[in-house]
Amino acid sequence: MSDSLKRSHSCGLLTKEAAGEQVVLCGWVAKRRDHGGLIFVDLRDRSGIVQIVVDPDDAGNSFTTAEAIRSEYVIKVAGKVRLRDAATVNPNLATGEIEVVAADLEVLNAAKTPPFYIQDDIDTDENLRLKYRYLDLRRPEMQKNLILRHKVTKLMRDYMDKNGFCEIETPMLTKSTPEGARDYLVPSRVNPGKFYALPQSPQIFKQILMVAGMERYFQIARCFRDEDLRADRQPEFTQLDIEMSFVDAEDIMEMMEGLMAYVFEGAMGKKIQLPMQRLTWDEAMDRFGSDKPDLRFGMELVNMSEAVKDSDFKVFNAIVEDGGVVKAINVKGYAAIPRRELDGLVEFVGIYGAKGLAWMQIQEDGSVKSPIAKFFSEAHLANILKTAAAEPGDLILFVADKPAVVAQALGALRLEMAKRRELIDEDMLTFAWVVDFPMFEYNDEEKRYVAMHHPFTAPRNEDLAMLATDPGKVYAKAYDMVLNGTEIGGGSIRIHRRDVQNEVFKAIGLTEEQAKEKFGFMMDAFEYGAPPHGGLAFGLDRLIMIMAKRDSIRDVIAFPKTQSASCLMTQAPNDVDEKQLRELHIRATLVKKDK
Amino acid sequence: MSDSLKRSHSCGLLTKEAAGEQVVLCGWVAKRRDHGGLIFVDLRDRSGIVQIVVDPDDAGNSFTTAEAIRSEYVIKVAGKVRLRDAATVNPNLATGEIEVVAADLEVLNAAKTPPFYIQDDIDTDENLRLKYRYLDLRRPEMQKNLILRHKVTKLMRDYMDKNGFCEIETPMLTKSTPEGARDYLVPSRVNPGKFYALPQSPQIFKQILMVAGMERYFQIARCFRDEDLRADRQPEFTQLDIEMSFVDAEDIMEMMEGLMAYVFEGAMGKKIQLPMQRLTWDEAMDRFGSDKPDLRFGMELVNMSEAVKDSDFKVFNAIVEDGGVVKAINVKGYAAIPRRELDGLVEFVGIYGAKGLAWMQIQEDGSVKSPIAKFFSEAHLANILKTAAAEPGDLILFVADKPAVVAQALGALRLEMAKRRELIDEDMLTFAWVVDFPMFEYNDEEKRYVAMHHPFTAPRNEDLAMLATDPGKVYAKAYDMVLNGTEIGGGSIRIHRRDVQNEVFKAIGLTEEQAKEKFGFMMDAFEYGAPPHGGLAFGLDRLIMIMAKRDSIRDVIAFPKTQSASCLMTQAPNDVDEKQLRELHIRATLVKKDK
Repeated sequence: MSDSLKRSHSCGLLTKEAAGEQVVLCGWVAKRRDHGGLIFVDLRDRSGIVQIVVDPDDAGNSFTTAEAIRSEYVIKVAGKVRLRDAATVNPNLATGEIEVVAADLEVLNAAKTPPFYIQDDIDTDENLRLKYRYLDLRRPEMQKNLILRHKVTKLMRDYMDKNGFCEIETPMLTKSTPEGARDYLVPSRVNPGKFYALPQSPQIFKQILMVAGMERYFQIARCFRDEDLRADRQPEFTQLDIEMSFVDAEDIMEMMEGLMAYVFEGAMGKKIQLPMQRLTWDEAMDRFGSDKPDLRFGMELVNMSEAVKDSDFKVFNAIVEDGGVVKAINVKGYAAIPRRELDGLVEFVGIYGAKGLAWMQIQEDGSVKSPIAKFFSEAHLANILKTAAAEPGDLILFVADKPAVVAQALGALRLEMAKRRELIDEDMLTFAWVVDFPMFEYNDEEKRYVAMHHPFTAPRNEDLAMLATDPGKVYAKAYDMVLNGTEIGGGSIRIHRRDVQNEVFKAIGLTEEQAKEKFGFMMDAFEYGAPPHGGLAFGLDRLIMIMAKRDSIRDVIAFPKTQSASCLMTQAPNDVDEKQLRELHIRATLVKKDK
Repeated sequence: MSDSLKRSHSCGLLTKEAAGEQVVLCGWVAKRRDHGGLIFVDLRDRSGIVQIVVDPDDAGNSFTTAEAIRSEYVIKVAGKVRLRDAATVNPNLATGEIEVVAADLEVLNAAKTPPFYIQDDIDTDENLRLKYRYLDLRRPEMQKNLILRHKVTKLMRDYMDKNGFCEIETPMLTKSTPEGARDYLVPSRVNPGKFYALPQSPQIFKQILMVAGMERYFQIARCFRDEDLRADRQPEFTQLDIEMSFVDAEDIMEMMEGLMAYVFEGAMGKKIQLPMQRLTWDEAMDRFGSDKPDLRFGMELVNMSEAVKDSDFKVFNAIVEDGGVVKAINVKGYAAIPRRELDGLVEFVGIYGAKGLAWMQIQEDGSVKSPIAKFFSEAHLANILKTAAAEPGDLILFVADKPAVVAQALGALRLEMAKRRELIDEDMLTFAWVVDFPMFEYNDEEKRYVAMHHPFTAPRNEDLAMLATDPGKVYAKAYDMVLNGTEIGGGSIRIHRRDVQNEVFKAIGLTEEQAKEKFGFMMDAFEYGAPPHGGLAFGLDRLIMIMAKRDSIRDVIAFPKTQSASCLMTQAPNDVDEKQLRELHIRATLVKKDK
């Protein structure tokens, strides 16, 4: 075998401009077929596919070589580019106007027959794809995902660098803190009985870096959470992590809007309209029943409590009297919904805790068809229709319950109906900020307030006085960036004043001593000159998934794990030697025997 | 406190061009002093320091505020830039020609007195610096190190991107393999009794990515080795990891030379002469006694075996007859070395296993002063001097032993003498490639050959035939990049042919079945069309350390660990709850009680 592998061109980039040129190509055999005494090879590399023609008259001995090749063989071809006959031009292929006439063909490596086709849109079982990930990643659509991911992170770094941010690596072997999600632990060999934790995020370190005067930090950081995995969760995930000093929330949001505009323009040629829309948390919950509203369509939640007041419908009346609320959405033009589908929707809202669903179908003559219509006067009905801006042909869906339940159920129903009615333009990119989150939520189990984000989040200045008196009414300087109904990033201005920090600890039931015990070194650090600062983090996997229009984050991660946190390719996690455990001063209490 | 923190300028970037301008600055109080009824504040941010003058006439109430500030307080100052009087210009300060007259001064945060000075060149105990890392990192020289690190990684990514490399993240939760260094293990909660390992390097994944057709991969990757820590080792470290398909060793070396030139030019304005010098491993060992020779100075090892042949000095004769070798270095102009220092050198080479050191001091009249001179004839002495290119005033140092011992002892002595004689120009950057490493080394304990790099390294084509017959003579397509006597990167062309891989496994005493068991999924992957490929990895921490001219990699890592693998700031590793261990199905066998 020759060592000289220098390629002259990439397969997928050859165009008719190259006609007549001598080229050397390397790649994988995507397809081989024999026709009229010739052998045709679709040769694939990262850039795409080009057709090779092996003619015994041109290729000499290499023709025999070509006869032996099979799919996924790795070959090297030297030959001449020529224009195809008009009749054989393939308009579906970027290189479809030309072909390469092989003069020399060499097999660099043979290949067994792959367990699935190396092409886009296969419907192979995902577990098989994960086991043979090296073949799955050879499929052009998967390569495109990884290349997009590379482009996006490159653009992010370019933007952050241009704006004076410094990428700083923070430790992976860190300290376990009992707060937050479950830690992945790493036993220490040198310090018997002690453990490191893999970071759930670089939160503490990035705040420490602000105390250290770095002013503008970022990192594309691996994070770890040992939680039971849902569809879009991975044990390890990546975030773009950012922190700035001497700024307010608006400064950070503006900087991040610029980042998104830069990344989407650079990676996809899409222009984003700035500034992004801002919604308070209250408004988002009220109008969309969600703190991450999908704004690509309307169908907003409307409050019917006023319109249904004083009717004969006791169910609504009782709920409203009990502090509940009646809200509705108007599914335009869907009055003809089948009864069976309506029954399904009752079940659907049930998942979100709603005890029932009421509906009104607005007939073509303007009359209302509804099991509950009889409880309402003409005036009531007219008011309801007006409130919902309903016209003939529309369907109004009602949920009445505690406000939180109504928001959750009707918010989910809104999304579901939009999908069914195909109201969502998949090409739209609708960004928004949701701001002014409640600072605390009341935890019924623990009978105390807990921080909605984390206890270092700063309360709004105007709410500081209520920290001691009415913590439930305090809002935080927190902000989430939402794209097409997905939270892609979130953060806050942090507390930098000791007195405010103490008030917040008090509000969540911590004495200053307890706080010291839990957050000791960080509290110490903050006493040596902490600047005002804030930041946020973007979930990179999810962002790339949206950009690549995939349904699973596993499609934008090179080597993801299954829902049981295993790697099907390497068989991690695996058994280890007893000796390894002894050295780490631990013992497995429950070992599955393989035999 | 006002939310509006918008700074107009960075402290360290204000020049006389800004004279007359209104500015708003934020930063830390580096120094405050009172003089002539005025308060002078050195205000520091990431960019540098500027002098603030607080005059009661200009500052009004802010003068009282200024009276209360102490070192490391965080303040905001609004004021006007003015030129300093010629007499008070400070030429040692970038901003020394101007000062800012404060109109308004606000304390953003107070600070306790730091345990050490926030300035360069402190000789504080490193443990104190590590405990208060947030203060240590506030020192300008430490900030510069982190900013340099950011710049270097940015430049690396720019270069790799320009050259078609795709940055791909590989998993941190991987499979434990019994090869190589000791793994850090992570117990799995979902898979009881099983463990992940943190990666020692992304080696297997990057080769898998080549099989996956990614062609050009890189990653700035965190790696982990649970080894006893020497001065320049950390439990977690960072490498620039690279792999390419369809290339030979020369292609990779050329690409990497371009990278270094780009990075050194971009980060430090230093031009590197290309191509870099190439030395075979044999030549490096022969001439410099090291596989990472420092080429900033000469003092090469010369072989004296021929020159001392047939003398009356039985020690040399016996060693040479026994397969040993006599080599020497010429320390120019150091004939006047004190006797005590010579005795010290005997001890010095003893550390490296040499049983003795001989010397010859060449007197001004050309005569030789040496305890062993009497054993040599005039002709012998003349020949020795000629071989060493020795002149009056020179000192020749001899070591005679087995070739490996001579190389090690004399290689170390060469470096030591260069330091003592101050022969090393600290501003020089001397790069070289060391190539053609031996493929195997014989392991006396295991009585078998083991791979010098790893068993996936490709042998040289011309040596393939010797794999079965004489493995000790096989050289590998391996290459290390050396800078100023430090190995900064290393890699190899990998085996992609199954038959060659089998031969290599045989040479290290593995049957094909044992190999399958150890490297199963990787061997599988290689049967589905593996392209010819190779790569390398650079140790980022060490490279930055050299660029920053620091003696410790801890100075270029934001949050390093001590030699007992602890973080003095966060107290990681720490004790964890029994509940956490129970959930992970492990038990600590040795728990230090804190009480």
